[in-house]
Amino acid sequence: MEQFNREIDELLLYKEFKKLRHLLAEHDSFKLAKLIEDRDDDNEIILFRLLNRAQTKEVFSLLSYDKQYKIIKKLEQKNHKFSILLNEMDPDDRTTFFDKLPDEITQKLIDFLSPKEQTIAIQLLNYPEDSIGRLMTPKYVAIKSEYSVEEAFSHIRKYGQDSETLNVIYVVDEKQKFIDEVHIKELLLASPTQKIEELLDYHFIALNAMDDQEKAIRIFQDYDRVALPVLNADGIILGIVSIDDIMDVAEEESTEDFQKFGSFSEAISNPLKERIFNLYKKRIVWLVALVFMNIFSGAALASFETLIESMVALVFFLPLLIDSGGNAGSQSATLMIRSLAIGDVKLTDWYKLIAKEIGVALLLGGTMALAVGLVASFRAPEIVFVVCATMVIVVLVGSLIGLLLPFVFTKLKLDPATASAPLITSIADISGVIIYFSIASWYFGIR
Amino acid sequence: MEQFNREIDELLLYKEFKKLRHLLAEHDSFKLAKLIEDRDDDNEIILFRLLNRAQTKEVFSLLSYDKQYKIIKKLEQKNHKFSILLNEMDPDDRTTFFDKLPDEITQKLIDFLSPKEQTIAIQLLNYPEDSIGRLMTPKYVAIKSEYSVEEAFSHIRKYGQDSETLNVIYVVDEKQKFIDEVHIKELLLASPTQKIEELLDYHFIALNAMDDQEKAIRIFQDYDRVALPVLNADGIILGIVSIDDIMDVAEEESTEDFQKFGSFSEAISNPLKERIFNLYKKRIVWLVALVFMNIFSGAALASFETLIESMVALVFFLPLLIDSGGNAGSQSATLMIRSLAIGDVKLTDWYKLIAKEIGVALLLGGTMALAVGLVASFRAPEIVFVVCATMVIVVLVGSLIGLLLPFVFTKLKLDPATASAPLITSIADISGVIIYFSIASWYFGIR
Repeated sequence: MEQFNREIDELLLYKEFKKLRHLLAEHDSFKLAKLIEDRDDDNEIILFRLLNRAQTKEVFSLLSYDKQYKIIKKLEQKNHKFSILLNEMDPDDRTTFFDKLPDEITQKLIDFLSPKEQTIAIQLLNYPEDSIGRLMTPKYVAIKSEYSVEEAFSHIRKYGQDSETLNVIYVVDEKQKFIDEVHIKELLLASPTQKIEELLDYHFIALNAMDDQEKAIRIFQDYDRVALPVLNADGIILGIVSIDDIMDVAEEESTEDFQKFGSFSEAISNPLKERIFNLYKKRIVWLVALVFMNIFSGAALASFETLIESMVALVFFLPLLIDSGGNAGSQSATLMIRSLAIGDVKLTDWYKLIAKEIGVALLLGGTMALAVGLVASFRAPEIVFVVCATMVIVVLVGSLIGLLLPFVFTKLKLDPATASAPLITSIADISGVIIYFSIASWYFGIR
Repeated sequence: MEQFNREIDELLLYKEFKKLRHLLAEHDSFKLAKLIEDRDDDNEIILFRLLNRAQTKEVFSLLSYDKQYKIIKKLEQKNHKFSILLNEMDPDDRTTFFDKLPDEITQKLIDFLSPKEQTIAIQLLNYPEDSIGRLMTPKYVAIKSEYSVEEAFSHIRKYGQDSETLNVIYVVDEKQKFIDEVHIKELLLASPTQKIEELLDYHFIALNAMDDQEKAIRIFQDYDRVALPVLNADGIILGIVSIDDIMDVAEEESTEDFQKFGSFSEAISNPLKERIFNLYKKRIVWLVALVFMNIFSGAALASFETLIESMVALVFFLPLLIDSGGNAGSQSATLMIRSLAIGDVKLTDWYKLIAKEIGVALLLGGTMALAVGLVASFRAPEIVFVVCATMVIVVLVGSLIGLLLPFVFTKLKLDPATASAPLITSIADISGVIIYFSIASWYFGIR
């Protein structure tokens, strides 16, 4: 790579574009994408424009979103090449790319497309965001059930060039209604004269274009497929979704959940590339909201002023006790958020989990009370009972909050991951303060 | 499904096994897997044993791990059928299944395999856990570069029956050294007399059997493939890995990271099925460790006893201030853990992120200081300065801890997700207590 880079630099310096074009043509798209990705000067666009047609398309789809955007901005002056590029991108890659752009730019870009590709693009963009319709590509091969295997192969040879996969061939009737799919493996192993209908078992898994992408992730994981047909309400095939697109979606969803749990208001894709102000914007919302929530724990503390003044030692155990409730709560929330996301647990399972959680939380609280009791008995023997009793109760309360909040958010049609660790901590803090000082106040008879 | 269930129950009741066998043979594996999964009595094993051979294999691989284990336990008495089942499972599915069992049971099960399958199983199990070797299957089709397309097809027809995918065909030399891969699409579209070598470009992506599975996830995501060849150090092909296995691994890794961040010591797959004591065991480790860590914040507080006694109002803002540091820290940690996991950020990038983080943290801390200053100016105007100054510093310190800890853990060859939200919160608490009361002690001149 080092030497290759040096060679390119030299040719660029002496403007040997013809030699450059030949040199680039000899290398594969991965290497070229890396070459262009790593450059941050005007040469990136020169290199990009020296690629041949097939390379242009492949290299472009391998670039990061930032780089794609930059190249498009620069290419807009030079309409012709740009329009070829857009027209040749895979429709599903193009939809993903369009989705990230402001609407007015998307509209402008659609103008660059040929009438045929425009229809495809508009069709794909009409589906709700996060719907399976947005992921599908109309590039598949469909055959009729009355074909022979031989006829199927000649059909594939004729129309298969553009297909995203030839691993699965789709069988439809004359109205494009989906009947079944047949794996290329079965075709390859069958005798050429056999009829397609003999290969069908009429059992299939299909996706619905309007369904949520999360549903597609679940189905792909449960049924080990590499591509699935997408149907409309009438059973007409609209396109297919392939597993590599699903994997990208699954990774994004996972990242989003993870970051929400860390209390980001919006997901951040790459912190190295994100601007400081955007990082600030996506972090500040929850942080300030939590400051205001925490003012309640301050108010609760203020109402116990006399008690605190007469027994300052209580304060020493305050961070420990309120944290313990928050920690136990974060655990339960993590478990529930992830289980709800991957479908192990359903909304209606909440009551099944409560009894178990009470059992676990009492065991946890008991063990932690023992640990803290040991320390307190040396340092402040007069408050051992209060500290231990508080520990058991805050762990119980924290765990139940952590368990239930993700269900509540799901019920409210919010992402369960909104029950972030910091949110749980703050709620556990307020309840912890109240529990701790109420027990102390009752035990010592001081208010 | 309802009616189907009722029909099955009736046939079971009257022991109409012949009719049952016929009825079951008419349904697809997904439906049958669901039927068996949902049953929790002795009938599950009767139903399972009434399946035909092809169904047995497919249905078994669709069942949950718990159910698979239960069925194996029950089948052990009836060796014959069980051994057929094990022998016919896909080697990679079998490895995954073996991996979850105690070693002595795995060993016992390997005995059930035919000599040929034993070799495959032992080979797969010899690779380090979490290595790509554990995921690969030796079921692929390899051809020679001197074949014609026609010869390739007849080779595929002959040896392709068992292959996990026929989407990609692997080209090797006489020593099994991997040369290139050819997509079935290219074969289908090529003329029958063309030579395979004309279709090759000798650029390929391959995996190494000893590499970590995480690396495979990255490569599959970056290069949009459905299967990749696995080579040893000499370039000999050992097997292939397909994307559906990679997707399962990616999901597991994600779950593990998520749960570690919520401070579980070991991942929990399904909370509905996990026993109370196991839940306790996987949660208690970190909770007790954090209790002991938090004792330091108690000790820090105790050392400021005089200050606290003379100015109890300081305590009211304690939970708010220490939480704020922890919250900002949890955010940075989330961002880093996920970015490290998906490869957006590398170990060597830490210093690039620090300058940015300081900028963001100062903006965050400033905004939060404004918010809390507003409240404090009404409630306790004498400590407004101390509270605001503390806020800025704890947010800065918390953010930097959250940013750096995942890098430190990675450097120590630990999972970055070990920098869990509760751990960050506890560290932020201790530093928060010290910062807060040190500033107050300096400002008021009380120690």
